Amino acid sequence: MEKTIVLALGGNAILQPGQKGTYTEQLENVQKTCTSIAELLDNGYQIVITHGNGPQVGNIATQQIAARDKVPPMPLDICGSQTQGFMGYMIQQSLGNILRERGVNRPVVSLVTQVCVSEDDPAFKRPTKPVGGFVSKEEAEKIMAETGEKWVEDSGRGWRKVVYSPKPLEIVEMPVIKTLIKSGAIVISSGGGGIPVIKKDGKLQGVEAVIDKDRAASLMARQLAADMLVILTDVPRVAINYGKPDQRFLDRLTISEAEKFLKEGHFGEGSMLPKVEAAISFAGTGKEAVIASLDQVKEAIEGSAGTRFQPSKTYSSVS
Amino acid sequence: MEKTIVLALGGNAILQPGQKGTYTEQLENVQKTCTSIAELLDNGYQIVITHGNGPQVGNIATQQIAARDKVPPMPLDICGSQTQGFMGYMIQQSLGNILRERGVNRPVVSLVTQVCVSEDDPAFKRPTKPVGGFVSKEEAEKIMAETGEKWVEDSGRGWRKVVYSPKPLEIVEMPVIKTLIKSGAIVISSGGGGIPVIKKDGKLQGVEAVIDKDRAASLMARQLAADMLVILTDVPRVAINYGKPDQRFLDRLTISEAEKFLKEGHFGEGSMLPKVEAAISFAGTGKEAVIASLDQVKEAIEGSAGTRFQPSKTYSSVS
Repeated sequence: MEKTIVLALGGNAILQPGQKGTYTEQLENVQKTCTSIAELLDNGYQIVITHGNGPQVGNIATQQIAARDKVPPMPLDICGSQTQGFMGYMIQQSLGNILRERGVNRPVVSLVTQVCVSEDDPAFKRPTKPVGGFVSKEEAEKIMAETGEKWVEDSGRGWRKVVYSPKPLEIVEMPVIKTLIKSGAIVISSGGGGIPVIKKDGKLQGVEAVIDKDRAASLMARQLAADMLVILTDVPRVAINYGKPDQRFLDRLTISEAEKFLKEGHFGEGSMLPKVEAAISFAGTGKEAVIASLDQVKEAIEGSAGTRFQPSKTYSSVS
Repeated sequence: MEKTIVLALGGNAILQPGQKGTYTEQLENVQKTCTSIAELLDNGYQIVITHGNGPQVGNIATQQIAARDKVPPMPLDICGSQTQGFMGYMIQQSLGNILRERGVNRPVVSLVTQVCVSEDDPAFKRPTKPVGGFVSKEEAEKIMAETGEKWVEDSGRGWRKVVYSPKPLEIVEMPVIKTLIKSGAIVISSGGGGIPVIKKDGKLQGVEAVIDKDRAASLMARQLAADMLVILTDVPRVAINYGKPDQRFLDRLTISEAEKFLKEGHFGEGSMLPKVEAAISFAGTGKEAVIASLDQVKEAIEGSAGTRFQPSKTYSSVS
């Protein structure tokens, strides 16, 4: 029986900080990422992929604003679905190419994925999730005054727009995801955290929000009863006292240790905090979660890289 | 055994001529279309949906141009994949809502779909496929002079940009589509004719083109061995001498009649021509194809509306 691993790719797997975001840049990043993923398949893992869309959904918002006199701008759920299309396409094509080259005959497919949130989620009271590119303080203040949007300083990297980020409750397309996994397909799903929808009188409708992709990945891993959740980002391990003289990287954490550090405010909202929360919620099911850097995905799964979140009772190695 | 029907939705199923293309407009159109589709499921048909994306991919191109100083514009394959995401989302959500309301428990899902074309397709010598909105002759001439793009007059409705439109040869995700249909899911696939890719050294790569969605729908219907191909558009039937005093709507055509009219130039390139070609190529497999208006889909399938393309040997009613 293959082990099922849910892989959550950070935005940097597709568009790296400092890059302009050209097609060539994004495709090269995706190809590199997919080469690492393909190696996992060699090792007999069943992989389900989800990915962030922060920079990309921000770019689409920028394009919409620039053309608003000619083309009516679309709400955030639509922008999110556009990124599922194009990022899914890039991953699907790149991973498919690499698998064919390796003689692995497995279909790779991206699904448009809706994720239910609650209308009553307190997150709808305060926008917290950063989307789009970074600007200077002055520029952010100007945009806030003009549009009423909220922008915040993000981990010393500049100012970003923040939007509502409700908690994912249910992956609408889960039955289809399960059917496809069972058939041997590699599924790319819940891109950008999924398209946020609420249920109203039994009907789904999109909402102006963005779901954190790590939370959505954790939900997916739990609903699939996956064997491991792997959250890939741009740092090798989770740190406490991040950026301070007494910064310390962690290689293992129990749930209670992680919860303690969380309460002490060690993890930045909009960056490490949701990853740690996602890892804790998955580890709570009795399986391991790992936060690691993208170029160490194999090592992370096998136990020699990343920060491992151990289930509460016993620790069992996967390798 | 359920009859399998491939439904090709025209652009007007989602964005009607004269509309601005707001979210509300497009969602209302989609909901109306999905109500008609849901009725077919009541009648025991298995439905596979594909859709055009002409106006939408044009809007995305407009947005990209407007923001090109800030966000690098993407090639046409990426723009197409964006429309698969957002149009798939709207159809998936709307049809899912209507089915739940009717107590039908079947998943609806949109797949990112790549469609292989040949690098050597003669279509890469001359752009013919209209995309995007209509402009005046003067404006089109100005844009052509500035950008080198090609714009043409389209059926008396104004001037539109035209791009390469190679012939679809293979739907890459066909194994996944078949798995999902077999599982009872309603699949939305090959949106906008599919994302055009070529195979080079065994690897897929996107190309700057748009595949005609009716041709892609015909290919899908043939590859699925579907029982019927239904091409939905904004006219009730196919006409010869269209727009002339001796215009005549047709309710039935044999393949050889259709080919004769085609050669005589009765069908407009970029509008009715590809639909008729798609219908002929499917009817060539011995099953019926129908071209009809969106609001008569049920009648078209049952035989009382639209233009039916009869397979060459015998005619057998489906109703």
